[in-house]
Amino acid sequence: MRRKRRGGFIMAGRHFLQIPGPSNTPDRILRAMDQPVPDHRGPGFGDIGAKSLEGMKKIFKTRQDVVIYPASGTGAWEAALVNTCSPGDKVLMYETGHFAFLWSNMAKRLGLDAEVIVGDWRHGADPVAIAERLSADKAREIKAVCVVHNETSTGSVTQIPQIRKAIDDLGHPALLMVDTISGLASIDFRFDEWGIDVAVTGSQKGLMLPPGLSFNAVGARAKEASKKATLPRSYWDWEEMKGPNEKGYFPYTPASLMLYGLNEAIDMLLEEGLDNVFDRHARLATAARAAVEHWGLEILCAEPGHRSNVLTAVMMPEGHSADRFRRITLEAFDMSLGNGLSKVADKVFRIGHLGDFNELMLMGTLSGVEMGLELAGVPHEKGGVMVAMRHLTGNGAAGANAAA
Amino acid sequence: MRRKRRGGFIMAGRHFLQIPGPSNTPDRILRAMDQPVPDHRGPGFGDIGAKSLEGMKKIFKTRQDVVIYPASGTGAWEAALVNTCSPGDKVLMYETGHFAFLWSNMAKRLGLDAEVIVGDWRHGADPVAIAERLSADKAREIKAVCVVHNETSTGSVTQIPQIRKAIDDLGHPALLMVDTISGLASIDFRFDEWGIDVAVTGSQKGLMLPPGLSFNAVGARAKEASKKATLPRSYWDWEEMKGPNEKGYFPYTPASLMLYGLNEAIDMLLEEGLDNVFDRHARLATAARAAVEHWGLEILCAEPGHRSNVLTAVMMPEGHSADRFRRITLEAFDMSLGNGLSKVADKVFRIGHLGDFNELMLMGTLSGVEMGLELAGVPHEKGGVMVAMRHLTGNGAAGANAAA
Amino acid sequence: MRRKRRGGFIMAGRHFLQIPGPSNTPDRILRAMDQPVPDHRGPGFGDIGAKSLEGMKKIFKTRQDVVIYPASGTGAWEAALVNTCSPGDKVLMYETGHFAFLWSNMAKRLGLDAEVIVGDWRHGADPVAIAERLSADKAREIKAVCVVHNETSTGSVTQIPQIRKAIDDLGHPALLMVDTISGLASIDFRFDEWGIDVAVTGSQKGLMLPPGLSFNAVGARAKEASKKATLPRSYWDWEEMKGPNEKGYFPYTPASLMLYGLNEAIDMLLEEGLDNVFDRHARLATAARAAVEHWGLEILCAEPGHRSNVLTAVMMPEGHSADRFRRITLEAFDMSLGNGLSKVADKVFRIGHLGDFNELMLMGTLSGVEMGLELAGVPHEKGGVMVAMRHLTGNGAAGANAAA
Amino acid sequence: MRRKRRGGFIMAGRHFLQIPGPSNTPDRILRAMDQPVPDHRGPGFGDIGAKSLEGMKKIFKTRQDVVIYPASGTGAWEAALVNTCSPGDKVLMYETGHFAFLWSNMAKRLGLDAEVIVGDWRHGADPVAIAERLSADKAREIKAVCVVHNETSTGSVTQIPQIRKAIDDLGHPALLMVDTISGLASIDFRFDEWGIDVAVTGSQKGLMLPPGLSFNAVGARAKEASKKATLPRSYWDWEEMKGPNEKGYFPYTPASLMLYGLNEAIDMLLEEGLDNVFDRHARLATAARAAVEHWGLEILCAEPGHRSNVLTAVMMPEGHSADRFRRITLEAFDMSLGNGLSKVADKVFRIGHLGDFNELMLMGTLSGVEMGLELAGVPHEKGGVMVAMRHLTGNGAAGANAAA
Repeated sequence: MRRKRRGGFIMAGRHFLQIPGPSNTPDRILRAMDQPVPDHRGPGFGDIGAKSLEGMKKIFKTRQDVVIYPASGTGAWEAALVNTCSPGDKVLMYETGHFAFLWSNMAKRLGLDAEVIVGDWRHGADPVAIAERLSADKAREIKAVCVVHNETSTGSVTQIPQIRKAIDDLGHPALLMVDTISGLASIDFRFDEWGIDVAVTGSQKGLMLPPGLSFNAVGARAKEASKKATLPRSYWDWEEMKGPNEKGYFPYTPASLMLYGLNEAIDMLLEEGLDNVFDRHARLATAARAAVEHWGLEILCAEPGHRSNVLTAVMMPEGHSADRFRRITLEAFDMSLGNGLSKVADKVFRIGHLGDFNELMLMGTLSGVEMGLELAGVPHEKGGVMVAMRHLTGNGAAGANAAA
Repeated sequence: MRRKRRGGFIMAGRHFLQIPGPSNTPDRILRAMDQPVPDHRGPGFGDIGAKSLEGMKKIFKTRQDVVIYPASGTGAWEAALVNTCSPGDKVLMYETGHFAFLWSNMAKRLGLDAEVIVGDWRHGADPVAIAERLSADKAREIKAVCVVHNETSTGSVTQIPQIRKAIDDLGHPALLMVDTISGLASIDFRFDEWGIDVAVTGSQKGLMLPPGLSFNAVGARAKEASKKATLPRSYWDWEEMKGPNEKGYFPYTPASLMLYGLNEAIDMLLEEGLDNVFDRHARLATAARAAVEHWGLEILCAEPGHRSNVLTAVMMPEGHSADRFRRITLEAFDMSLGNGLSKVADKVFRIGHLGDFNELMLMGTLSGVEMGLELAGVPHEKGGVMVAMRHLTGNGAAGANAAA
Repeated sequence: MRRKRRGGFIMAGRHFLQIPGPSNTPDRILRAMDQPVPDHRGPGFGDIGAKSLEGMKKIFKTRQDVVIYPASGTGAWEAALVNTCSPGDKVLMYETGHFAFLWSNMAKRLGLDAEVIVGDWRHGADPVAIAERLSADKAREIKAVCVVHNETSTGSVTQIPQIRKAIDDLGHPALLMVDTISGLASIDFRFDEWGIDVAVTGSQKGLMLPPGLSFNAVGARAKEASKKATLPRSYWDWEEMKGPNEKGYFPYTPASLMLYGLNEAIDMLLEEGLDNVFDRHARLATAARAAVEHWGLEILCAEPGHRSNVLTAVMMPEGHSADRFRRITLEAFDMSLGNGLSKVADKVFRIGHLGDFNELMLMGTLSGVEMGLELAGVPHEKGGVMVAMRHLTGNGAAGANAAA
Repeated sequence: MRRKRRGGFIMAGRHFLQIPGPSNTPDRILRAMDQPVPDHRGPGFGDIGAKSLEGMKKIFKTRQDVVIYPASGTGAWEAALVNTCSPGDKVLMYETGHFAFLWSNMAKRLGLDAEVIVGDWRHGADPVAIAERLSADKAREIKAVCVVHNETSTGSVTQIPQIRKAIDDLGHPALLMVDTISGLASIDFRFDEWGIDVAVTGSQKGLMLPPGLSFNAVGARAKEASKKATLPRSYWDWEEMKGPNEKGYFPYTPASLMLYGLNEAIDMLLEEGLDNVFDRHARLATAARAAVEHWGLEILCAEPGHRSNVLTAVMMPEGHSADRFRRITLEAFDMSLGNGLSKVADKVFRIGHLGDFNELMLMGTLSGVEMGLELAGVPHEKGGVMVAMRHLTGNGAAGANAAA
């Protein structure tokens, strides 16, 4: 598995995995998973499962239910929909970018009447547009409003409390379902306080795990809705989980080693403190954005207050291929950057700065980008790394110019 | 995570995980998974995915398609159904035991008209009963026949070619869908030669991996059926997999470290040779059954030719609790045995002898059972371990008295 | 690295490593060692080193000094000698077996006048013989008495307090130096209480680590002696260790990952409790000896009260090759047994039953021996495993017929 | 083991271990070592040992003997001396820095008449000074000339062929013994071609392993000398190794898991190609030195042609504490830098850029140094990282201004 650089030379040292997820899994988590597989029905396993379930409540900031699936995040999207909706139900989905688009596409394939408000892929979801549409829904046909918290394809953050307020101000009964796959445990998220009904997340972003687990947080109204929802469901059925989960067990074989890893991740996040985790992400992201702006490149997210502390999507100047730049950077410096997806394919590259990440890893990353721009012949003002260093040694005014 | 024995003493040495799955994951596989998470969209990942997909074809013995899900085996059950069926479709399911029951239950919850032939939980599926029912189905309403190859709850093996023949002899168009979750890679399985339309398996049995991956093998007729099938599907949709799979990629984030482990497992199985793997399982199972018979305990599977080489389910004498025996064995000897499920709860215990397993692991296991019977006061003829050793040092007449 | 069995078939399952050391290293220790290498001069390292040094005092049962070497046990033998002796010094060494012989050989090569009392390799060191020799040493020329606590080549244990008493009764000033390489942390050892002056041990036996660390425990009289000792020394010099050790550091680069493993081993031993560890070894060893006696094979250690709970050395009947038997057992059952060394080469095989070991591992081991005897055509009474099981399920009269 | 930053916040992400050894051990090697301990006397082990011994010959570039010790590099220093010298022998040692000093100190403690030419710690060993001293040695009393190839405390490289030539030109029979503990496998080293008699190395530098193994390469003249050498030796004795080594075995228990790691390291080095490894070190070191010079800091090694590609030792401006700077850098950025030793304590810090290392790891490192200088208030010209990037994206004129 040794990578080769251009010309066939073998790479040495660590690969820089700077896509916006999977993030870098720390050794501590990998070692926690490198264990003999347990008997998931044995007497000792309940404590493990209970720790995962209770721990994830702390991460989601909820006292309500958490459901854990042996599945990718995509599965937890499906779970959110099939547990709450019936065939033909109208759901209002806001397309902040590629992943919001994929979720709406899934809704359609599952037989829902997904109405999509298409954004410009450069902002978080617009509460005004959502309010307008809900306001027009006199018949209260819209069963759910679905938004993406941190849009991984664009680096834009939706202000969830504003969406909640838009719904509440109209007294609209729609559920609020939020994809925080790449937001949770990197930027602030408060399930209960923000009045979210269903949240969706995955293991391989802020939770720092390999891919293979996904989650729903489920509020009381969503559970109520699930009783009447008639989309066929079995694997994803919240109700099935309930009984076994009460004692830390699962209705079918859980991904037990991933739960070992999850418990370690929960410990790490709580040891550092969630607020410190968010501050760290903010501090590093601020430095990254400052570098990008110094290079003279445009940040895809047009609204400074919506910019994500998880990743920065960067627009290439006209006439320059983002994918060529990414390939050169990979081959010359063994760093993986995220690609532009769909509409912004080849026009955008994405720098992941999330998870188990620190100042010097960021500086290696930004140096790789600056050198890659040079090698790829992309016009830029040199010295972005200097600006980033200034931020990192500065007064730590973290979070300025970033999504709250 | 150190276990305590009765009286609070801490256990030392290795736990004996002798449930019929998860099986013991070898170090070689665990180490293959203990790696930095890769960029699953990067240029090097296609080779990894392709190796998994191609390798699994060899394990399934098929030249047709294999689909890999980041999910438990239960998910691949759902995938088999939602890709081939429409709401209300009639499917004929044979209840060989608890897992066949669960699958039929899932079918019902997904809105299918699952008609279940309830067996006695002591045999494989009966081809005559299936033929009778199909023969009565003049309208050809039955869309699929679903059977479990190796019923993990009972240790009975269904003779798949006989089921195929029953269907073919009647010229019935029903698809043949086979759960080989606990059969594949431990006992013979031939997807193409046996004319199976859909097969379902999981990672944590003969494949020796932790739980978290599951699989479908998909034949041409099933793919054809999937075009007309209207059950809502997205996560499980075979069609979505197809394009990306062609180059070794996946439509959504795969459980990449599990694929590393899978590739190692495939290498190990092919290095040993599938036939040698099957012979080893037969040899060890024969010895295990001989021990059980010597103890004077009854093997749940009543038909010698249906007895599984993967596990042996053992009936407790009247008046003795299987769960108490299992608890005593766990506490005294740090060995996990499988419990009796549902109908046979507390009446049966199950000895797993599958996966990365050998003679001395078996002898430790059988010794633990014999000593556990002693400690639990279960009447038995001592010396089962002696009989097992005689088999293991004998002429190796493996497979006698076992499911082919 | 997959082993092949006779006929070229590949082995599956776990190898049974039943040599009397290296013992089986538990996963918990291996994972503790599978970590990024630390800066052994950095501010955090002192705590790690201090934990190792303090923890080993608990294992040795001493309040005096412990010295840790990045070296095999052989190195700690050399350390014991070069720190306390001057060229030509007379030392009295008791040859309990091959390892005692090797140590005396080393003493000669280092320029000491090593006088060896050659035992019959079937007992621990004889305190009477030692007393006689010391008694004749009117000039008090003998600087040290060197004995092996648990002779790994024969399975005999020397009663250290009796040796101490023999020296003390004569008022002889000789130091008492004890090799407990394979004794410590498996059988009782009390450095301070027993009045030992220097002890020698290694990592790969009762400490359950891989080979690569070795240790001296050093009493006050030995330290005093080291001031006058003139054998050249540098790497092994106790005095050099002293200053850095006080803060948990080392004068040259320590085997840092091994220290991580050592700290985990210390935790495991103290969690179980040293007395429980000794009881477990006694219980398992008693069962092993009972099996051997049932087979009708002779235990090399002729004195029941000297028999080791760490290993059992078994004599082959005349005309049968122990090495052929071991090869057959390895090839048929993937179990490594210890060979006979030097004088008893090919006449003896050794069963290790130490370290991270439990009942079912023992039963797998004994089954492998009983089957190996069968395959090798060695005459024996079948049923040793039955006798062992009787002991393991019995009243736990552990330690009967064993070295205290 | 989570580190805390100033103010008590917990560190996230990877620690930057940028001391000049131990270097960063790659996952591939750590995983190769995370294995069940083997029977080092079993039939399969010889292949492992032979691979280590043969592989190290390729790394040393010799067809003569290699000896492997379970020990730190310090042990291999001792081995070189005790195998070749007799008490009171005169050896000529050149003090290039702290480690050369320690070696000469060891020689004295072992009873040798070590005559030391004290250099200025800012150059490699001076062949002229050595020639002068040898020339004066009419009696040919000097038995060996000992030099350090890459002086880890100063970052200066000795030109070994020049030393050889100095000896040969005088026809002096002294052995040439070379410490290449931190040179081997990072910078060019040719045991046979350069006419070296004994070389000494350790595992934790260019070999990328944890500490715990050390090595001698032994030429024919040294072996001849060892026959007459009378310093007491046993653990280190080359002769003892010979017989067992011929079949890949060892006279006492080897550090077997370390040998697994060594074999993986050898594979990695040969896959990349030693010349490519050296070029990579040269390229990265050139960039590092350029950064240091831009900052306006002085490189300790005063002779450009002697500057090491393994590490760069940097002098602090008068009035600034190197240790304070290092502590600030550790606490703020979780990076370990090497300290100044002995004479240059607190005046020098050392940047390790060796082993499994690449461009972005270097940029993270240099960024950490530049930011640390800022935080510590050390006067410097900002922009060293820019200069380093220019080198890394430049024409790759590697090795300019560096030791050959």
